[in-house]
Amino acid sequence: MNATLTRAMERNTALVDAAMEKLLASTPDLPESIRKAMRYSLFAGGKRLRPTLVLEAAECCGLNAKKALKTAAALEMIHTYSLIHDDLPAMDDDDLRRGKPTSHKVFGEAMAILAGDGLLTKAFEAAAENAADNKLKGKDAAELIRLIAYGAGAEGMVGGQVADLAAEGMKKKLSKQAAAKILEGVHRRKTGALIVASLDAGAVLAGAGKQEREALRNYGECIGIAFQIADDVLDVVGDKKKLGKKGSDIANDKLTYASLYGVDGARAKARALVEMAHANLKGFGRKADVLHDLADYIIARDK
Amino acid sequence: MNATLTRAMERNTALVDAAMEKLLASTPDLPESIRKAMRYSLFAGGKRLRPTLVLEAAECCGLNAKKALKTAAALEMIHTYSLIHDDLPAMDDDDLRRGKPTSHKVFGEAMAILAGDGLLTKAFEAAAENAADNKLKGKDAAELIRLIAYGAGAEGMVGGQVADLAAEGMKKKLSKQAAAKILEGVHRRKTGALIVASLDAGAVLAGAGKQEREALRNYGECIGIAFQIADDVLDVVGDKKKLGKKGSDIANDKLTYASLYGVDGARAKARALVEMAHANLKGFGRKADVLHDLADYIIARDK
Repeated sequence: MNATLTRAMERNTALVDAAMEKLLASTPDLPESIRKAMRYSLFAGGKRLRPTLVLEAAECCGLNAKKALKTAAALEMIHTYSLIHDDLPAMDDDDLRRGKPTSHKVFGEAMAILAGDGLLTKAFEAAAENAADNKLKGKDAAELIRLIAYGAGAEGMVGGQVADLAAEGMKKKLSKQAAAKILEGVHRRKTGALIVASLDAGAVLAGAGKQEREALRNYGECIGIAFQIADDVLDVVGDKKKLGKKGSDIANDKLTYASLYGVDGARAKARALVEMAHANLKGFGRKADVLHDLADYIIARDK
Repeated sequence: MNATLTRAMERNTALVDAAMEKLLASTPDLPESIRKAMRYSLFAGGKRLRPTLVLEAAECCGLNAKKALKTAAALEMIHTYSLIHDDLPAMDDDDLRRGKPTSHKVFGEAMAILAGDGLLTKAFEAAAENAADNKLKGKDAAELIRLIAYGAGAEGMVGGQVADLAAEGMKKKLSKQAAAKILEGVHRRKTGALIVASLDAGAVLAGAGKQEREALRNYGECIGIAFQIADDVLDVVGDKKKLGKKGSDIANDKLTYASLYGVDGARAKARALVEMAHANLKGFGRKADVLHDLADYIIARDK
């Protein structure tokens, strides 16, 4: 990560973390046990990629990042809830996440399910508050919530997880072309949809026009798939310790970009997507510097 | 149920069911497997109490019920998701719900978790669309989403489930006064919060003022607790076949209104709450007829 991007990520992370702490402040109606579980996963060392996308998209479209903090927090809460539920024994059954015990390992399965539910719900509360704080018009406030829900829901991220579970073990039976189509369908929704929603949310908060929204969405689709390809490559060549992971997708015979195209083929695909991502940012000039750097970082990272 | 209420519930149910079908229409991005699981639980014979509250609250405040259908559907989706997750093996571990196999029994645990997540998320999409359709002002659109999220979330319904799990087995160790406080705290959130949110959502959609909103919220708090008391009483004296349930809370030594106050004491408490519910509707005149009937029905029902 170059120095400019590091600074931007650190600044955004500090702002978003403070906003999340505030949104999860102790109240008489919030049981301490679930507050603890929600906080545990929120502050377990995430890269804060999605909130950074919200904030930078807002800046690109002329809104001060500080005015988009609650929506940025909302997107991180949705991302975190999805990790908690994906890790459950009935789903991917993971004991570790970013090198730390997963939510159900620490708090039990019931609480992990509820903490996830609580985070997802709190996200919409936070985004709605943010719309009100910014005095968004009714149409835009509704659009903000709608697009986040669509990206997170059964047509978006949740649908991607469904497709991913369905694709398990399919690898052997499929032609390469069919496998590629399924893989892209999974990740466009599983990772891509929420990344696209993060950028679009920042844009809508800023009152962006159709063209700006589309450019940012296109950028998001490119980096979303590139991000997943990089993940698959890291799963093969990466340092398990840095990744905080046990086992690997290849060992599980999972359908991945690396297994489908080989490490070099997958890397070439990711680079091409990142080029397309850059191209989509042209209209924003210098304001998109952080988004440019992020696109490069996504395929260069080692964890 | 008297004939007027029966007609109103049937009319509302038909409208809400059609709205839910439309919201869950097949699309290329919605995996058929999760669509099926979401529909299974949505159309498993629910009483449509919460959507009816949305529609009747809207009518009380001068908005045609048909304009509140997507929000009514949203509240039923949130209620349904909560039942799916509550029934999971890690939570209440129920095999039957309304006499039918629960979601995880039919579709497996992973899909049940995801179907719940999908319904919760779709609910916010539907409510946001409804706000846009009705050209709500930004402040009101945001308030609609915020209040639904608050009622459904960790301070509301989800928090109630957390408190309920924590209260399990506590009965023996507590004084009657302490047990009563815990019980009320559980149910004010677990059942009450979403009922209150349903009424408040209808009111906000209709552009209601502070006084109308407060009256409907108070009505909701009363019938929410009365509803739970009636449930507890039915668990003791009701027909297991009609209830579609196996086992009973008493057999499980659960803290309930019936175990705490006895069946007669619990019934008296419910009647007093229903009286208070009626009193809160005074200002709405004839427009609140269905809500009056509903309050009476809640403690008179046999399933």
